[in-house]
Amino acid sequence: MERTIRVTVFNEHNQDKTEPVKSVYPEGLHSAIAACFPNEEGFEVRCATQEMPWHGMPEDVLTDTDVLVWWSHLDNSAVDDNVVSCVCRRVLEGMGFIVLHSATFSKPWERLMGIYPTSPEGWGRYRSMPKGEREIAWVVTPGHPIMQGVGEFIDIPQDECYGEPLLLPQPEELLMISWYEGGQVSRSATTYRRGRGRIFCFTPGHEEFPIYRMSQVRRVLANAAVWAASKEPAPFKDRALDNKPLTDLSHRQ
Amino acid sequence: MERTIRVTVFNEHNQDKTEPVKSVYPEGLHSAIAACFPNEEGFEVRCATQEMPWHGMPEDVLTDTDVLVWWSHLDNSAVDDNVVSCVCRRVLEGMGFIVLHSATFSKPWERLMGIYPTSPEGWGRYRSMPKGEREIAWVVTPGHPIMQGVGEFIDIPQDECYGEPLLLPQPEELLMISWYEGGQVSRSATTYRRGRGRIFCFTPGHEEFPIYRMSQVRRVLANAAVWAASKEPAPFKDRALDNKPLTDLSHRQ
Amino acid sequence: MERTIRVTVFNEHNQDKTEPVKSVYPEGLHSAIAACFPNEEGFEVRCATQEMPWHGMPEDVLTDTDVLVWWSHLDNSAVDDNVVSCVCRRVLEGMGFIVLHSATFSKPWERLMGIYPTSPEGWGRYRSMPKGEREIAWVVTPGHPIMQGVGEFIDIPQDECYGEPLLLPQPEELLMISWYEGGQVSRSATTYRRGRGRIFCFTPGHEEFPIYRMSQVRRVLANAAVWAASKEPAPFKDRALDNKPLTDLSHRQ
Amino acid sequence: MERTIRVTVFNEHNQDKTEPVKSVYPEGLHSAIAACFPNEEGFEVRCATQEMPWHGMPEDVLTDTDVLVWWSHLDNSAVDDNVVSCVCRRVLEGMGFIVLHSATFSKPWERLMGIYPTSPEGWGRYRSMPKGEREIAWVVTPGHPIMQGVGEFIDIPQDECYGEPLLLPQPEELLMISWYEGGQVSRSATTYRRGRGRIFCFTPGHEEFPIYRMSQVRRVLANAAVWAASKEPAPFKDRALDNKPLTDLSHRQ
Repeated sequence: MERTIRVTVFNEHNQDKTEPVKSVYPEGLHSAIAACFPNEEGFEVRCATQEMPWHGMPEDVLTDTDVLVWWSHLDNSAVDDNVVSCVCRRVLEGMGFIVLHSATFSKPWERLMGIYPTSPEGWGRYRSMPKGEREIAWVVTPGHPIMQGVGEFIDIPQDECYGEPLLLPQPEELLMISWYEGGQVSRSATTYRRGRGRIFCFTPGHEEFPIYRMSQVRRVLANAAVWAASKEPAPFKDRALDNKPLTDLSHRQ
Repeated sequence: MERTIRVTVFNEHNQDKTEPVKSVYPEGLHSAIAACFPNEEGFEVRCATQEMPWHGMPEDVLTDTDVLVWWSHLDNSAVDDNVVSCVCRRVLEGMGFIVLHSATFSKPWERLMGIYPTSPEGWGRYRSMPKGEREIAWVVTPGHPIMQGVGEFIDIPQDECYGEPLLLPQPEELLMISWYEGGQVSRSATTYRRGRGRIFCFTPGHEEFPIYRMSQVRRVLANAAVWAASKEPAPFKDRALDNKPLTDLSHRQ
Repeated sequence: MERTIRVTVFNEHNQDKTEPVKSVYPEGLHSAIAACFPNEEGFEVRCATQEMPWHGMPEDVLTDTDVLVWWSHLDNSAVDDNVVSCVCRRVLEGMGFIVLHSATFSKPWERLMGIYPTSPEGWGRYRSMPKGEREIAWVVTPGHPIMQGVGEFIDIPQDECYGEPLLLPQPEELLMISWYEGGQVSRSATTYRRGRGRIFCFTPGHEEFPIYRMSQVRRVLANAAVWAASKEPAPFKDRALDNKPLTDLSHRQ
Repeated sequence: MERTIRVTVFNEHNQDKTEPVKSVYPEGLHSAIAACFPNEEGFEVRCATQEMPWHGMPEDVLTDTDVLVWWSHLDNSAVDDNVVSCVCRRVLEGMGFIVLHSATFSKPWERLMGIYPTSPEGWGRYRSMPKGEREIAWVVTPGHPIMQGVGEFIDIPQDECYGEPLLLPQPEELLMISWYEGGQVSRSATTYRRGRGRIFCFTPGHEEFPIYRMSQVRRVLANAAVWAASKEPAPFKDRALDNKPLTDLSHRQ
């Protein structure tokens, strides 16, 4: 690992305080997700939860973050709009952003994708069954850095179904397609860029099943953080107007 | 023409009330742009300006609009957020959206592109010279429906320069690249989709020069409206949850 | 319908001469596919088979073709390379090309996709079971012209399974994803462009099941032909060198 | 640098044997290009020229190559088709491929792009002037790994002009757009994938000007080789058929 990658994991930390989620992730979803980015692979991780001031993401934390990982669900609408604006601006400047499962209904994701405001009804045809259903996530882009070491597919015994048509803008790269027992499919691993920021969306991860403990899922997330971490972030304010014609170009660089 | 395409042209209608723009477009920028969509080609056009109630775009007007064309500049920040939300929702449902020149700083464009909130500083390196500068917009996708009848390039004697790197998400289709006399380039005609809506961005059109009177530019805009008009709009509320498993699939369609 | 679209349907016409395919398509696969492009929708169709001189596609036929539809399987390697070159050149000039099912192993497809020479082993993980398996092809791009009138999905009772990872270049547009009973998925409706030509790939259509008689499949193919037919084909020889500098640009158009 | 990246530089080695190119690159174009991949950055480079047996690329050399860099021009048509097939197959398996300047008329590039057979006339509107013309290559994707350390643009005093519309398939990523003094533009740095192989096309580099000695150009090429080198190449023969249904899936991985 050439350099340290600073990851911040945000979790709304609501459902994981009570059953049935508490038994699955007694340490909190954020801690389970944080464990996907081990120190020995060069990651430095901190966690943020919604109840903290600024939801744990004051500006200086975001400035010190290479990649922000976001898990949320029921409390999406209660997220402070100022924090959301700061997150979005940081992505445009180059911060990586990884959005997990139901965080596809979160404000920063909807804003970055240009689908704000929408609602769960608009997102797609999902189906939530108490026992979950089998999901087989197939790699369609073998050789992509985020897919390294993952193998041909991830066989997830139980997950919630997110069925197409999902309200996704056309991804720049489609990495995985999921098959669901109940007859549905979804584009389950996709990439986007906004400004200098790289964005990865990974839909598996229903809170009632220990999906973030699967080694293949952890491989995907660690790979994604390396992929999303920019080496050349560029604070927005530096991108000034340029009113000089060609003859002055040589003085510019 | 198989069917009528209902176009609404929005213009903030500010600078065209006074010189120097007034002499270029005495009828108002909206009227000049509206003239790009002639009745005899099957278009039905109405105009909206910012001073009208709901900026001329109350919900029933948007519901009756197949393609919304948007020109704005100085008054971008004064646009009502409720109107913006309604426009964005309609795009997700299938309304076409054509954004012109400095409307790339407008709220609906920034929201749909996922770059909101930003600022002119963030958009790119533009350069505005009193006399403008020559722009040659090259077709890079000959054969695309929006480029039909346009020829190989549009030679615009005077325009404002919008220089790369522009804060554009990766376009789904890049149709034109502009060369500027002063040494710059830009992706000047691009397409996107959001939900069911098709979006076309065309950057030429500085208000001080009669660019929307050029026949090739008018061809591009008319083609774009045909391309963007959906034949199957789908009001958002109809996209309901589906909690039924596979065995009920056969009852669904 | 504004104008006539001239479709040529190529079928190798091998397996459909004997059982079990003969009972499914007694009129020949080409005739069944040709019936997807009805006269009353503005199509003019002719058929070509491999046993005809030039496989039924001498240069003048290809010159008179707006969209070429290709079905082949066992005889792919016996197709004359000169015919293949002529087909590929015509696509670059603007002829539409629709490739069906196992024609994804055909020479023109492999050449246009840049995956030539390969082999069925390279294509993906397919699975052929005597009774076939259920395939549900989901629309992921509602509102796309090729998907109009198709609904949310096509439920195909029996087909052969083409499983990811398929050896597809990244499609410009992904229109459908198929779910297979046996646990696999595939990108089953995709679009590409090469030169001025538009290309549509549709993988359903195993010869032992009457898939080309399904009304939704026929809708997809008719829509695709309208989408792929160019209004501005450009014979290759006209794209000459241009050694003149800028000052002569004005004389060029 | 985590690991060694094995680069093979192919140069047809024709024009650089005589003037005027000889004075620009007395060591041969291949040696000048090879110098872009320094040992201290973890590269291991070998050179191949057309006059060598198998053009310097027998199968074992290609098997030992992570990234193949290709410069060619006048001798494109004399390249052995068996070598071309082997190169293309290796790209599908995961070998990176970097194509430079007029190698966009070479057989492997045309084959991988699906535009074979074509001709210089089909490629685009290029213009070759004895003194060359100024080219400013603008970065349109700041933050992309291949653009790291490059700055906002590369100002090339003299190059040959490759003008749009170029016969390029839609790139997966457009990294640079070039402005030419004479009024033209081109997509000058683009990426593609074929199978597992990543492909980078960089059009600057006319042989009569010392473009491959510019530090920014060298930065681009070194970055591109790191980007294109696969960590998980997969020989084609291993991708076998899979006729087993879902119930056996668990035995597969």
